[in-house]
Amino acid sequence: MPFSLDPPVSIGLIGFGAFGRLVAAHLGPHADLRVHDPFVPAGAIAETGAAPATLAEAAACPVVILATPVATLAAVVENIAPHLRPGALVLDVGSVKVRPAEIMRAGLPAHIDIVATHPLFGPQSARDGLRGLKIALCPVRGGRTRRVGAFLRRALGLTVILTTPEAHDREAAAVQGLTHLIAKVLVAMEPLPTRMTTRSFDLVMQAVGMVRHDAPEVYHAIERENPFSAEVRRRFFALAARMDAELGEGASR
Amino acid sequence: MPFSLDPPVSIGLIGFGAFGRLVAAHLGPHADLRVHDPFVPAGAIAETGAAPATLAEAAACPVVILATPVATLAAVVENIAPHLRPGALVLDVGSVKVRPAEIMRAGLPAHIDIVATHPLFGPQSARDGLRGLKIALCPVRGGRTRRVGAFLRRALGLTVILTTPEAHDREAAAVQGLTHLIAKVLVAMEPLPTRMTTRSFDLVMQAVGMVRHDAPEVYHAIERENPFSAEVRRRFFALAARMDAELGEGASR
Repeated sequence: MPFSLDPPVSIGLIGFGAFGRLVAAHLGPHADLRVHDPFVPAGAIAETGAAPATLAEAAACPVVILATPVATLAAVVENIAPHLRPGALVLDVGSVKVRPAEIMRAGLPAHIDIVATHPLFGPQSARDGLRGLKIALCPVRGGRTRRVGAFLRRALGLTVILTTPEAHDREAAAVQGLTHLIAKVLVAMEPLPTRMTTRSFDLVMQAVGMVRHDAPEVYHAIERENPFSAEVRRRFFALAARMDAELGEGASR
Repeated sequence: MPFSLDPPVSIGLIGFGAFGRLVAAHLGPHADLRVHDPFVPAGAIAETGAAPATLAEAAACPVVILATPVATLAAVVENIAPHLRPGALVLDVGSVKVRPAEIMRAGLPAHIDIVATHPLFGPQSARDGLRGLKIALCPVRGGRTRRVGAFLRRALGLTVILTTPEAHDREAAAVQGLTHLIAKVLVAMEPLPTRMTTRSFDLVMQAVGMVRHDAPEVYHAIERENPFSAEVRRRFFALAARMDAELGEGASR
């Protein structure tokens, strides 16, 4: 059973960027973590308490989590495939799901179970803990999604949303596509007022603060790799332009 | 001295819309309120505990608060002018300040003191009380701005920001112009997801919830009567278009 606590299951974590570190911090107490990141020295991994591993060692674990940018997922899948053990479970954590699910289904051997996940939080929003935060789970192959969900709920306190890659991407295109687009534009407009502010402006800027330090890869995945994002942006711009035109027409001065 | 608590000063309140009601609810305990609104029956005013008054009665109070839409301010000023008593203090509460300050300075007799104000909150953001909310005060004529500020701070717990109409409108064009524009566009895009949401999206939608029921006059004042709003919208759209073009160029699919 994956994620059983006694004895701790070995989990291979590929990718030790900002999100990989967050995964390690929260799964560390529940598992025997083997971490591989070609760009992070083994010493820096060991300092966090996790065990550094080669790609082959991490990929040979019964559970393997891919915490790498969506844009590199195809290459990572190709590299780990030869090292995976029959019956292993592979999960990704990307911000979009249609394309990663396709990549994993096509690139991972038939004997591998696959769950595509999207933790709907990041290092900023998880600063005060995971309890109550959301994660989307999409079954891709094998029947272990519910067991994964039960662990995430019970051990980490997450709210688990079972969905499909397409349904996920449709909602995420609005949720994340709009938030990140608005945040990107507002950051580009800085300096913005900090003194004469309203509660609603403060809330918007708090939202901006949560995503402004996200890796550029996250923004690109959300805006480019989500098949529905461009359409959401079109609608946003078309409506904004209409509002602007209406205001221009009725301008009193 | 205006706003002294003993004996309670008489305050004429012209305008009993959503914001006028909020003013009445918070000033009621500190003053003898005389409320006039040509569109609200005297009975409806009396029900809230305030005393209905004719325009002449309300305008004859030592302190007169104009809580009418910015677009109608010039007409209101013209109508109250003949009834004002020498030495009275007139305040407005509009979301912009350059134009209302001009209108009041030009339309009110020289013996009238004037403070232009912008309470940076509304019925939604003031739901849990006024404490800590902000109000901008612009001295227009006479020397009573600081005394008004002291009352608002001590009696109502507001954070008082002393500024000029132009400095106010420059900041408000960004703060309120952007918040209301974004809110308007997001409301037009509804239904938006409510299930698979992130903390940052939830914050943005909470901000939208605070302004979505504002009177259309508030939106129009913010976007049309603020001399700097059109420029802020231009910058927002130009930057958004640039982001979109960059995403289009680099699209991987």
